[in-house]
Amino acid sequence: MRPATTDSRLPFSLAQARPLLERTPAIVDRWLRGLPDAWLRANEGGDSWSPFDVVGHYIHGERTDWIPRLARILEHGTAVAFDPFDRFAQFEASAGRDLDELLDEFARLRAASLAALDGFGLDEAALDRRGRHPALGEVTVRQLLATWVAHDQDHLVQIARVLAHQYAEEVGPWRQYLRVISGRPG
Amino acid sequence: MRPATTDSRLPFSLAQARPLLERTPAIVDRWLRGLPDAWLRANEGGDSWSPFDVVGHYIHGERTDWIPRLARILEHGTAVAFDPFDRFAQFEASAGRDLDELLDEFARLRAASLAALDGFGLDEAALDRRGRHPALGEVTVRQLLATWVAHDQDHLVQIARVLAHQYAEEVGPWRQYLRVISGRPG
Repeated sequence: MRPATTDSRLPFSLAQARPLLERTPAIVDRWLRGLPDAWLRANEGGDSWSPFDVVGHYIHGERTDWIPRLARILEHGTAVAFDPFDRFAQFEASAGRDLDELLDEFARLRAASLAALDGFGLDEAALDRRGRHPALGEVTVRQLLATWVAHDQDHLVQIARVLAHQYAEEVGPWRQYLRVISGRPG
Repeated sequence: MRPATTDSRLPFSLAQARPLLERTPAIVDRWLRGLPDAWLRANEGGDSWSPFDVVGHYIHGERTDWIPRLARILEHGTAVAFDPFDRFAQFEASAGRDLDELLDEFARLRAASLAALDGFGLDEAALDRRGRHPALGEVTVRQLLATWVAHDQDHLVQIARVLAHQYAEEVGPWRQYLRVISGRPG
């Protein structure tokens, strides 16, 4: 058994956030490139997303969300709200495209986003600058960047969950031990 | 918007399961190698696991769970139950060890496990063979192998969830959009 620890979350740190942001395209690439198409197109039923859809969503975020919103704050503060983000844009943008091409594009765009981030040379004061989200109201640069990190992880969770979901019945009685399938916390 | 699809889960297929099993060490390696120690040691509070702990757990699974249990079924069927799996063994086994060393070990052990799997040359009839789990009772080879795949994904979910958890407050009002933090289904 291990000693119990207290829950002390990490404070946001640009220096710590950046290496996680940098890794996401490579993680997704290793996970999905060359995987049988049945996995890539699998979903959780209904209009839920497949791993293929998630890659398109990451790409759309690079194009229209993270750096464009950061630039908006730095240029206009709260005076001009962010453009709304289209969570479904990837279904049109990715249609008929090859996964390998999408993975390459995500890697290229993320590298460009991080170069832009570095170019802004954000200091602690800049992290406190405020912008306006069209639905959520005032938000800070720090919140935007923390959300970028958490959003990456959110969709890595989704890829794993969609894949595991395929075997929700095939695992038989082990189902109760697998949080990803049982949905149990703990 | 995308057209709604029906939920048709994939049936277990050794040919489809193998490429997912093969990828897990590389995914974890890309995710964690070189990451700041603050991330590697972060957890969800209390006695929850860190990404570092998860790697040790994967290693222990290779050593004592998947292939040893498969071999047990093929040799003894239901006559001899599996040895119980120690979910906490990694806390002692990984103590004081370097993450890079653990990542290398996991990759080496998984490759050996897959070579052993290939060596068994399982056909459809072999997938239906039955063994005995010490708590769950009778299980099949197919269930064991499907669980191996789902278990990999379960702990990839955990790595992402632990990392995102660190910024549960830092994301501010975006919290409600992030399933990994809000815990909302959907």
